Amino acid sequence: MTKGRKIEIFDSTLRDGAQAEGISFSVEDKIRIVTALDALGISYIEAGNPGSNPKDLEFFQRVKELKLKHARLTAFGSTRRPGIRAEEDSNIQSLLQADTPSIAIFGKSWDLHVTDIIKTTLEENLAMIKETIAYLKSKGKEVIYDAEHFFDGYKSNPEYAMKALKAAEEGGADWLVLCETNGGAFPEEVYEITQQVSAGFKVPVGIHCHNDCGMAVANSIMAVSAGATQVQGTYIGFGERCGNVNLSTVIANLQVKRDYQCILEEQLVNLTATARKVADISNINMNEREPYIGNSAFAHKGGMHIDGVIKLSHSFEHINPTRVGNQRRFLMSEVSGKTTILGKIQKINPQINKDSKVTQEIIDKLKELEHQGYQFEGAESTFELLIRKLLGKYKPFFELVHYKIMGEQPSKTGDSSSALVKIRVDGIEEITVAEGNGPVNALDKALRKALEVFYPVLKEVHLSDYKVRVVDPKDTTAAKVRVVIESSDGVNVWNTVGVSTDIIQASWIALVDSIEYKLLKEIEMKARAYM
Amino acid sequence: MTKGRKIEIFDSTLRDGAQAEGISFSVEDKIRIVTALDALGISYIEAGNPGSNPKDLEFFQRVKELKLKHARLTAFGSTRRPGIRAEEDSNIQSLLQADTPSIAIFGKSWDLHVTDIIKTTLEENLAMIKETIAYLKSKGKEVIYDAEHFFDGYKSNPEYAMKALKAAEEGGADWLVLCETNGGAFPEEVYEITQQVSAGFKVPVGIHCHNDCGMAVANSIMAVSAGATQVQGTYIGFGERCGNVNLSTVIANLQVKRDYQCILEEQLVNLTATARKVADISNINMNEREPYIGNSAFAHKGGMHIDGVIKLSHSFEHINPTRVGNQRRFLMSEVSGKTTILGKIQKINPQINKDSKVTQEIIDKLKELEHQGYQFEGAESTFELLIRKLLGKYKPFFELVHYKIMGEQPSKTGDSSSALVKIRVDGIEEITVAEGNGPVNALDKALRKALEVFYPVLKEVHLSDYKVRVVDPKDTTAAKVRVVIESSDGVNVWNTVGVSTDIIQASWIALVDSIEYKLLKEIEMKARAYM
Repeated sequence: MTKGRKIEIFDSTLRDGAQAEGISFSVEDKIRIVTALDALGISYIEAGNPGSNPKDLEFFQRVKELKLKHARLTAFGSTRRPGIRAEEDSNIQSLLQADTPSIAIFGKSWDLHVTDIIKTTLEENLAMIKETIAYLKSKGKEVIYDAEHFFDGYKSNPEYAMKALKAAEEGGADWLVLCETNGGAFPEEVYEITQQVSAGFKVPVGIHCHNDCGMAVANSIMAVSAGATQVQGTYIGFGERCGNVNLSTVIANLQVKRDYQCILEEQLVNLTATARKVADISNINMNEREPYIGNSAFAHKGGMHIDGVIKLSHSFEHINPTRVGNQRRFLMSEVSGKTTILGKIQKINPQINKDSKVTQEIIDKLKELEHQGYQFEGAESTFELLIRKLLGKYKPFFELVHYKIMGEQPSKTGDSSSALVKIRVDGIEEITVAEGNGPVNALDKALRKALEVFYPVLKEVHLSDYKVRVVDPKDTTAAKVRVVIESSDGVNVWNTVGVSTDIIQASWIALVDSIEYKLLKEIEMKARAYM
Repeated sequence: MTKGRKIEIFDSTLRDGAQAEGISFSVEDKIRIVTALDALGISYIEAGNPGSNPKDLEFFQRVKELKLKHARLTAFGSTRRPGIRAEEDSNIQSLLQADTPSIAIFGKSWDLHVTDIIKTTLEENLAMIKETIAYLKSKGKEVIYDAEHFFDGYKSNPEYAMKALKAAEEGGADWLVLCETNGGAFPEEVYEITQQVSAGFKVPVGIHCHNDCGMAVANSIMAVSAGATQVQGTYIGFGERCGNVNLSTVIANLQVKRDYQCILEEQLVNLTATARKVADISNINMNEREPYIGNSAFAHKGGMHIDGVIKLSHSFEHINPTRVGNQRRFLMSEVSGKTTILGKIQKINPQINKDSKVTQEIIDKLKELEHQGYQFEGAESTFELLIRKLLGKYKPFFELVHYKIMGEQPSKTGDSSSALVKIRVDGIEEITVAEGNGPVNALDKALRKALEVFYPVLKEVHLSDYKVRVVDPKDTTAAKVRVVIESSDGVNVWNTVGVSTDIIQASWIALVDSIEYKLLKEIEMKARAYM
């Protein structure tokens, strides 16, 4: 293995990624993703196909205002259409209008696709490749040639697949990228074929894998071992069908576990945050089991694993999570053993040990609530309140007398719901009412209005995230729902959870926990200030 | 490659899978998963650790009532504790009490773990392995030896790692399973080390991989190429941290794309349905981009891909999706091109073509609704109704005069909510009221009660699934929610969607579409009967 060799990372989140189910980018989304990937030190950002999508041309105009530090913007398109000259092809002209330093051009390598899909002759396809590239080179562009279906093509007709690459070389291509378009190849095939190409051409070679056999990462790594120096993919792996190779995994595998350089060494620590940013902008839930960057990637649940990691972290961790900006987590659950739960209890009362009666009571309560549909892994503040209640270290800050919610359609005002809340604090009652664009929103507003009379500090608190999950979807509209709320006071962030068949009540439980947690921390802070 | 070689699939969904974040199985869940995996033809089902979890013992009692056709149930535990005899170890006794034909025993291969984690001598560890296995063999059990951390151990001290395997062989182990416990190994390492072991031992070899580098599938496949004949994993891949190898992918890779036999050939078609069943029972959202079994695995969105697949399916598909019980889908979206949308339109009106004015109107409406938060990929019935509305081929079946919902806590009855619904059909008004355990449930009941007066056929319809997703979680309780409802009349299943800031209204929209879709199909069916 060559040590320290530079591998160019080519991200296609905005082009191949946009072909994933459920993904749709606005121009603004695309600008934000370019900014995030550039900051991380990605070498190439493929940002769209201006010929097939007019919205992309608007994007290329706007993106010029950005001053990119690391990335070369790349427009994507195909070789010219059969039977015309490159300069006569409107798609090729759109590519030039995008005004990017690099252009990626895909062409056919698989004889079957030439004859049966684009329906031209094998000779004409070679001319299309060579002439399109030569024309773009004459305009001063860096040209990255994507040999579509290269591996299937090579397996079907190796001679023709190599001729197509030769045509690209003759046209002046700066890169020959071998595309495993259908995602069906196995690692040893990718290794062998990439090695053949690397040995046969002077032009540097890249690899572009899809995940239809779940081996896109391994295939990309094997291609690098066989000589490829560019890896194409999408940053968190979404793309057509099963997706492209996940570049965050490739970068970590090559740079943390092997001695290649993909991005700036000092940026590695931003690998995880960048993934979350890309997922947020793309409006998808990240797969939390994703290697390196997922929230579960270094989450230990089995009791023996937790004990091992506490003794020696690398006993059950292949890398230190902080290197990629992620963190180790010990999960609370019935299988996590007493160690983790005891740690939480001792933060509140250090005198309690694993044989204390209350420890078992807390574990039993935890199991009972998990059985009801609660999960505390993402709602640690509710769990802390639960421990305090069972330790007798808790006094409610207010009492609910009752709430009532009303909703109607058609609604007479813009707001479809209203809520009435009556609470009691130290014997004093307060009744409030509020309207909202839904029942939970109305209830949230009314409760805050009532409580702020007694606790003005709550004005600092706002909700920053709200999630709903149907616990058993088969019970349909009568099913339990779990509501998880993330709250923030501008300094700290905390999470609470509520479960009920009634979404309004589930939200109420999580809201109340959020507020009580804030008030509790406020008292503790003041107590510390007096010490 | 040996053709047609049998590979034994060992599923640990109920043991290693239970160590995944967010997973918690009831005894009933476990019974249902065993039944599903046995029906598919899985060879071994590792179902729990009776020593560490008393709930597992209850399960092992109950599971005996099942008559399994293919699978050997396997209990899991560790080698005896240092310094005592195997028969004195209560965990080993629990393993025997589980009364399974097979037992999987894990032991240490990595010298570091022996000295620094379990804190005993290297010699004692070898005795623990050999004696534990010999004791269980004397009780007539098949013993599968899991060499924990084998690859890290081999890389650190190959001589000791091999000695530990030797001890297992001497104890009489029926299998030597090489565990890539920390998930940090690369495919070529797994290949080479597995080959060394296969060559050095007569006992058959297995492989157990984790996905911390995103290469668990490739590592398992490489181990099989190097001689392993058992693959351990979890059926849809969840497990500690990033998860275990996804067995559904491994089975398809080996059996569909290579000539190994993992499960019965006639069961391959159940690969996808079994995955969905396991996900449902486990109460998790499956990753829809999962190879072979995911809903997106054969979903084509890019216009060129769709055109290619229509011309020749294997131009953009590595296998025929029906072989694994999945299906090809053409997605409707702004990038999918007109072909897919036109196909849906022409089903309703074959005279319309891609240049018709209404085609563009439908595409524009689709984009506008997607922008509002709608997604039609999983709600094709709502999309069909939308097309009918725009084509003028739609007449509402009823009119809402108004609905009102009320909720309160504390509630005087068991039900926290009530709903009043007033509708009008052909000038006749009907007003109903119903209570429910939440506002959506109450509204659902009241609407059905009112409509069944006019349309008794609706008595056949029930909801079979109900999902809620917050569209932009950052807007918290004021955010839009998307409700997707699956309905069934016992013969057909259809999906509808509604979006609103008010969860009650979003549910209402999806409910109304579900009912109208049923009534529309009913009329069409009757019309066909007259022809």
